[in-house]
Amino acid sequence: MNYKSILNVIGKTLFVEGVLLLVPMIISFVAKENNYMAFLIPILICLLLGGASYVFTGKEKTIYAKEGMVVVAGVWIFMSLIGALPFVLSGQIPNYIDALFETVSGFTTTGASILSDVECLSKSITFWRIFTHWIGGMGVLVFVLAIIPNYDEGVIHIFRAESPGPSAQKFVSKLKFTARILYGLYLVLTVLEMIFLLCGGMSLWESVLHSFSTAGTGGFGLKNDSVASYGTYTQMVIAVFMFLFGINFNIFYLFVIGGFAKAFKSEELRIYFIVTVLATVIIAVNILSIAGNFSDAVRLSFFQVTSIGSSTGLSTADFNEWPSLSKSILILLMVMGACGGSTGGGMKVSRMIILVKSSYADVRKMVNPRTVLGVKFEKEPMKDEMVKTIRAYFFIWVLIVIICTILLCIDINDIWSNFTGTLACIGNTGPGYGLVGATGNYSMYSPYSKVLLSFVMLAGRLEIFPILILFFPRTWKRA
Amino acid sequence: MNYKSILNVIGKTLFVEGVLLLVPMIISFVAKENNYMAFLIPILICLLLGGASYVFTGKEKTIYAKEGMVVVAGVWIFMSLIGALPFVLSGQIPNYIDALFETVSGFTTTGASILSDVECLSKSITFWRIFTHWIGGMGVLVFVLAIIPNYDEGVIHIFRAESPGPSAQKFVSKLKFTARILYGLYLVLTVLEMIFLLCGGMSLWESVLHSFSTAGTGGFGLKNDSVASYGTYTQMVIAVFMFLFGINFNIFYLFVIGGFAKAFKSEELRIYFIVTVLATVIIAVNILSIAGNFSDAVRLSFFQVTSIGSSTGLSTADFNEWPSLSKSILILLMVMGACGGSTGGGMKVSRMIILVKSSYADVRKMVNPRTVLGVKFEKEPMKDEMVKTIRAYFFIWVLIVIICTILLCIDINDIWSNFTGTLACIGNTGPGYGLVGATGNYSMYSPYSKVLLSFVMLAGRLEIFPILILFFPRTWKRA
Repeated sequence: MNYKSILNVIGKTLFVEGVLLLVPMIISFVAKENNYMAFLIPILICLLLGGASYVFTGKEKTIYAKEGMVVVAGVWIFMSLIGALPFVLSGQIPNYIDALFETVSGFTTTGASILSDVECLSKSITFWRIFTHWIGGMGVLVFVLAIIPNYDEGVIHIFRAESPGPSAQKFVSKLKFTARILYGLYLVLTVLEMIFLLCGGMSLWESVLHSFSTAGTGGFGLKNDSVASYGTYTQMVIAVFMFLFGINFNIFYLFVIGGFAKAFKSEELRIYFIVTVLATVIIAVNILSIAGNFSDAVRLSFFQVTSIGSSTGLSTADFNEWPSLSKSILILLMVMGACGGSTGGGMKVSRMIILVKSSYADVRKMVNPRTVLGVKFEKEPMKDEMVKTIRAYFFIWVLIVIICTILLCIDINDIWSNFTGTLACIGNTGPGYGLVGATGNYSMYSPYSKVLLSFVMLAGRLEIFPILILFFPRTWKRA
Repeated sequence: MNYKSILNVIGKTLFVEGVLLLVPMIISFVAKENNYMAFLIPILICLLLGGASYVFTGKEKTIYAKEGMVVVAGVWIFMSLIGALPFVLSGQIPNYIDALFETVSGFTTTGASILSDVECLSKSITFWRIFTHWIGGMGVLVFVLAIIPNYDEGVIHIFRAESPGPSAQKFVSKLKFTARILYGLYLVLTVLEMIFLLCGGMSLWESVLHSFSTAGTGGFGLKNDSVASYGTYTQMVIAVFMFLFGINFNIFYLFVIGGFAKAFKSEELRIYFIVTVLATVIIAVNILSIAGNFSDAVRLSFFQVTSIGSSTGLSTADFNEWPSLSKSILILLMVMGACGGSTGGGMKVSRMIILVKSSYADVRKMVNPRTVLGVKFEKEPMKDEMVKTIRAYFFIWVLIVIICTILLCIDINDIWSNFTGTLACIGNTGPGYGLVGATGNYSMYSPYSKVLLSFVMLAGRLEIFPILILFFPRTWKRA
């Protein structure tokens, strides 16, 4: 373990966080909230720790696979530890563990909250809360990569651990270049949504924050009823952008350079699209009697499908009260999640496709042992090693869900809420069912459960392995 | 596809079923129930179909892997189709789909029932209902193998598909010999339980039937409250035997030839034992306030842990009312199931061990890429191909659970009952939670859902693949 290089990267990222914290501090001044100290102290801590780590570690660059994963996990954990301070120092979330849960939920773009009333938060705190979604969205490391292009070979390991989904992005060879493109696309899409929302008559403040929340597929909202009180146009704009932010960002790049035809050749995109349409139709029919008429049913259904399917978690209705069929389909979407290489969570559509296709091939081989089946994904043959790893990933994912559910049951005597809450946290969706449903929150859990769920959110966001290896003693041995 | 050989085996098995049906018919005569026709007609059908298939197919013996799987699935399906007739013809389960569900549940040793009152059934029908557990227990094919030793090479394929669990049984080379030993052990253990139950003052009738139900890890009982009204001695005898019937039968063979020390070297047995003890302790502590005192808590806990852990499904308490922690642990046991090579269901302990160990090795390899880790199970290195198949098995298992839950939600608007009911059926446990809990049953489902759940029970019992390949058109092509 090369501690120096790890400290080095974490230090730099904290430096960046310090700069980012200036934004809510400025808002605090403008809004005359008189709570700028809530931001100034964390900023000073960031600059101090960041500076110190730079001085002590110098230009250390050696990063191997293991260090890469530890760096990613470390960056998210340290950013959350400090990012929680403004909530505590402003007195708006007085308990530190609560604030930490909220911040991890923000950075991991989960959107699970311990707050029952978000409308009473001050402007600066509201901004910081939702801003964490936007920062977390594209991955802190990609962000760092684009800002501080200081690494070379080692960076590939960080990037691999960070970039969601199993697909290897080959089409842009230079890493820094990729990071900048992704970052640029992210910015453009966010601004685009903002403009669409402004056109619908939403205020600048609300447009910006909703765009942040959507872009990160986060789910923190400005109102206690999420986005239920907004008009149909606004809701549909948000729904479409939730869908878009669930798409692999490479597809947008393909779209820019090759147009619609080229982008739509992606197998993952087509499945994501088909699943969204199918789920929307089935749920719309299923909730017809609740919605009253078909157009309302489609509106409610489309919003919730894109929201859960992209792992955002905003809502226009209390889908906890919907019939079981709708609820079970939403759980399936929660587990499946968005496309790899997007800001969304869940298992990822690409992994599901590979799991289904490879299993199908295995069973077919039992029927006809002599057939040699070339199983392909995105027109490339699946490698045995990849299939094996994804199957292990799936098992570990389910195992974490089972273990976390059992541990939560020690705390809260409601297995259904614990189970769906775990799914909503590991899938970075946010709301589950029961006590943690669209109208509920995670405040009733003990501090111990909140820390557990924070780890589960991080595990979900960082594709499990970087968080998992933190618990291996061998990881911490010096090289 | 060699239809002749398949028909041949199915025919012979039906012949055997015809003979087995004589037992309840004799009981019907002895008890002067006047419903012997309910058995005579199915017996005649069995003999007719069995005889006809023998005449038409002759001494056909060619069985390949694919045919082996289709044969196994076919045998279970046809035996269930005919085995359901006595219930309908006696008028005690008038609806054929209901009767089929009950019979599939019997033969697959699931114990899921559509009956709310089992005490009103006539003696002969009660006997047949529970007798199906015993017949199903060791696998109809193993049974056929021991009675009709007519096959040679092809038989290995049938046996592979039939014998539960992933472990290869090497220690007894001759197949027929193995089948006879397993069958002998099964008989001895059943009689042993019967004697123990008789010693506790239970009547011969009840002792025999409870032994049948336990031996098959089935779960059909004689009373509406399962075994709650029996004394502590009787409950403990049943609990211990449920645990025993969840052990790999090879272990009993090792015990017979090598004593306790040799048998307890089995990794799977040790884990099965440890899990049982741990679960018993945790649940006992968790239900302390419900049970009143510690000894009652241990009694209730031990019974339910062995019952669910071995996938039997008998109960001494309404564990649906237990706290969430106990319920979640019981669900884990339901999923994990008993040992491979036992009469129990679930994923099997051996598969879980292999999944956990191989995943652990994979993650460790990420920490230290240069380490070569020899992962072993039962002191033998795990083959890559086996690990890959078991991981696929796990994924398909979960996928079936998800899909079945969604389909059941179309029917009954209770996602929790549908989900746990599916788990209880694919794990061949029987009772789930909610509407299908210990005091509930499956009667409220539509015929369509009952057929679906029947397939799920069969899939669980036959280790999924034999049922799955029935839906591949390619399976039905002539060679």
